[in-house]
Amino acid sequence: MPRKIRVTVWGENVHERTNELVRHIYPQGMHNTIAEAIAEKTGLHVRTATLQQPQHGLTRRVLDDTDVLVWWGHAAHGKVRDRVVERVLARVWEGMGLIALHSAHYSKPFKRLMGTTCSLTWREAGEKERLWVCNPAHPIARNVGPYFELPSTEMYGEPFAIPAPDEIVFISWFQGGEVFRSGCTWKRGNGKIFYFRPGHEVYPIYYDKNVRRVLRNAVHWAASDGVRWIDSCPQVPARKAPEPLQVKGPRMHKEGQKGFR
Amino acid sequence: MPRKIRVTVWGENVHERTNELVRHIYPQGMHNTIAEAIAEKTGLHVRTATLQQPQHGLTRRVLDDTDVLVWWGHAAHGKVRDRVVERVLARVWEGMGLIALHSAHYSKPFKRLMGTTCSLTWREAGEKERLWVCNPAHPIARNVGPYFELPSTEMYGEPFAIPAPDEIVFISWFQGGEVFRSGCTWKRGNGKIFYFRPGHEVYPIYYDKNVRRVLRNAVHWAASDGVRWIDSCPQVPARKAPEPLQVKGPRMHKEGQKGFR
Amino acid sequence: MPRKIRVTVWGENVHERTNELVRHIYPQGMHNTIAEAIAEKTGLHVRTATLQQPQHGLTRRVLDDTDVLVWWGHAAHGKVRDRVVERVLARVWEGMGLIALHSAHYSKPFKRLMGTTCSLTWREAGEKERLWVCNPAHPIARNVGPYFELPSTEMYGEPFAIPAPDEIVFISWFQGGEVFRSGCTWKRGNGKIFYFRPGHEVYPIYYDKNVRRVLRNAVHWAASDGVRWIDSCPQVPARKAPEPLQVKGPRMHKEGQKGFR
Amino acid sequence: MPRKIRVTVWGENVHERTNELVRHIYPQGMHNTIAEAIAEKTGLHVRTATLQQPQHGLTRRVLDDTDVLVWWGHAAHGKVRDRVVERVLARVWEGMGLIALHSAHYSKPFKRLMGTTCSLTWREAGEKERLWVCNPAHPIARNVGPYFELPSTEMYGEPFAIPAPDEIVFISWFQGGEVFRSGCTWKRGNGKIFYFRPGHEVYPIYYDKNVRRVLRNAVHWAASDGVRWIDSCPQVPARKAPEPLQVKGPRMHKEGQKGFR
Repeated sequence: MPRKIRVTVWGENVHERTNELVRHIYPQGMHNTIAEAIAEKTGLHVRTATLQQPQHGLTRRVLDDTDVLVWWGHAAHGKVRDRVVERVLARVWEGMGLIALHSAHYSKPFKRLMGTTCSLTWREAGEKERLWVCNPAHPIARNVGPYFELPSTEMYGEPFAIPAPDEIVFISWFQGGEVFRSGCTWKRGNGKIFYFRPGHEVYPIYYDKNVRRVLRNAVHWAASDGVRWIDSCPQVPARKAPEPLQVKGPRMHKEGQKGFR
Repeated sequence: MPRKIRVTVWGENVHERTNELVRHIYPQGMHNTIAEAIAEKTGLHVRTATLQQPQHGLTRRVLDDTDVLVWWGHAAHGKVRDRVVERVLARVWEGMGLIALHSAHYSKPFKRLMGTTCSLTWREAGEKERLWVCNPAHPIARNVGPYFELPSTEMYGEPFAIPAPDEIVFISWFQGGEVFRSGCTWKRGNGKIFYFRPGHEVYPIYYDKNVRRVLRNAVHWAASDGVRWIDSCPQVPARKAPEPLQVKGPRMHKEGQKGFR
Repeated sequence: MPRKIRVTVWGENVHERTNELVRHIYPQGMHNTIAEAIAEKTGLHVRTATLQQPQHGLTRRVLDDTDVLVWWGHAAHGKVRDRVVERVLARVWEGMGLIALHSAHYSKPFKRLMGTTCSLTWREAGEKERLWVCNPAHPIARNVGPYFELPSTEMYGEPFAIPAPDEIVFISWFQGGEVFRSGCTWKRGNGKIFYFRPGHEVYPIYYDKNVRRVLRNAVHWAASDGVRWIDSCPQVPARKAPEPLQVKGPRMHKEGQKGFR
Repeated sequence: MPRKIRVTVWGENVHERTNELVRHIYPQGMHNTIAEAIAEKTGLHVRTATLQQPQHGLTRRVLDDTDVLVWWGHAAHGKVRDRVVERVLARVWEGMGLIALHSAHYSKPFKRLMGTTCSLTWREAGEKERLWVCNPAHPIARNVGPYFELPSTEMYGEPFAIPAPDEIVFISWFQGGEVFRSGCTWKRGNGKIFYFRPGHEVYPIYYDKNVRRVLRNAVHWAASDGVRWIDSCPQVPARKAPEPLQVKGPRMHKEGQKGFR
């Protein structure tokens, strides 16, 4: 029987508490709506974590127990502590999947994994968006048809300053005339990463049935098969070299010593 | 007439001042030997900068005046200030080339651009290394033949924890039995990045004629053509949308306001 | 319960019938030894097909019933009919995995999928090969340790004229001094492709336990999840455009007509 | 002084001779209009070649004398002889740039270099297209602003069945609601490849000033620096191995013999 995927949805949970309209749309917070979307029909175990919790809810134990981390952040990127970010990165490299949603293009973990600015252009006009599927057989694009539409959404436009994606799953068409690479994948270390554009605090995007389906698809795609590996940069002693080796010349380190970092 | 490429060689300049043997091999510091290698036969303007200078010698003015930055660091990666790192990253994204040498696989700028751990295995035994050219017509591999050898070198071995390179220019064979992706390229933003393995404090690697030739080749390859661009993540007002657009629905930001970061 | 993967091992079956030594090592033909290696411990359904069968054993029905095709060819690449090659390509694009072994770097399907010459350098001296794992957590590299060795093998050396792989799983070290990208992955259409270097007619490579393990790993990695898709290049009538559209200007094709090919 | 780039524009030259409307728009043939666009302001030497000439005008001598080949074809892809295609491919691998225009997504050389079907969806309704620049500093996108528009054009839509591009330079927005990766780059062997969507027989696309500018930019980007290399798959004799090597075990080939192809 296939292993159950363990999902953690992280939400910064700021606007939901400070903005009446956001609270109205997402009364339990966006993270809970996103978590419900993923649990729906899959029976997956989905937990949530928020900025306000100790260690932002992302303790070592929680991350160890997470196969896929979904990230929603917008107003408080700068408040996420670097120590937690490092912990998230290490788990991604080890094999945890990461799904970065909408404004998480500017979140610390995503920017660190990309190594670019991750900027874009944007407009809030409640316009129509149509997401085209670039490969109908891609596991993330299953069962959404050749495209799906969001009637009212924020616009994100090119240039989107990312490294060339491994695969482009969705490209968006906007009523106002722009386009955007809305679904992109990368691998960093052993972690699979999916960026997915849809989402906004004041539109009910995470109630849309196609968005929810893509979230579920993406969780299944991003989950590792359970094998974890992260490097330790070991010194290999000369006497353990695969080929017999006579040491010659000087050295900077003693045998058994760690390298500089 | 082609523009003269402006090169800055950054060296941490630590072991040269504290280790007798390193001082003996590189009496002017490794950065100066590397700078000479690049200036040799090219007439390029090559400046140097070191950790000990104010702002590590990498002021905004110096970086603005740099087309390609060459980076040597080893013992003092952690001493490089984050503000300077951010400035280097911004210039890479804008178009400056970056050549990371040997132990710079663990330097802050390189790790930030890769988004991975950049670890490897290693051994100091003064063994032989043979660097194979994976594409003889690649600009970085010109005029070094099908391979070149270093008689005495530190070993770096796989797994090398990097994102899949755009191109692999060199793969090394080591006497002790390991292999390594010794010459790799990536693009981040508009900056071209080249990682080149050879180099060590206590072997005269940067006097080797093939290593010096590769350094010159790489500088020419990495130099941008002078056009700079970096994104600003602008808000596009609805009335400036390419297609006529009626604003509908609520907004999180006012027109003209900046987005969250 | 996970779907059983259906594997077809194709072998050209030439040297096994014409060369005494090859027959001695692979009395049932190399394809059967490879098929046994894949079936071993997995209980997978593995069928074989050979050059000499009608349509080389790769009828539409066989390919339809194949999730992963393993290809061994060497002396008779040119005898594989183009019609069969086209059929293989279409199934790869639709989602069938392809594992190309050793001299299959020059097989028609592999060259067609790569779009390059796929050349390399080579030597038959029965030398030692050590295959290093570039990412220990990669599904194809499971349970073989940091490296494995083949005591006697043909050498393949760089430059290997392939497009930049999506991932490099193995790099080989050869006793005679060369290196080679021995395990590489690509995706073309929806098909996952793995090139694996080990193999030779007159060395018992396909009896090696690590080689056999990699074959099994690769079959699991390359198998699609059953969803198939291949494009048809459809004309979209103006009246079915997602946005209301007034046709203006002349046309080359009538509505409903197919495009040129 | 930089070397002058030698450009050959290949046109199938079919509709220009058989369709009154096409002849009216492109009285000298599309290839000549494209050639003029490239020569304009650059002073480059641009020659043309057509399907109807002996060897389609692409003799070994012409290709040897070509740094960048621009390809227009639509109705007669199937009439291009395979021998000429092989010659074009070999020159690309050796370093010649290739620019495939519009319907050349289905041309033999482009499909062979991609290794995929290269299909898409399409509609002829004379609708508006807006091409967005995904990286304003990319050499191919210089001086066209954040986007440019074509008032009346054929639509090409996703899914576009290509391997993941190295870089995406343009993405198109269509009035009818579709999107398309309209400017993509790859490298195969040493040849740089650019696919550029705009173009149609019955719209005056190749008179558009931005399209013409992109053509010139692309020619400069795709041109190699003159170094050529193509592999020969040589056998390396054991006595010429970089490391001393005792031959052991049997062989399939004699020393000096060529491998199978």
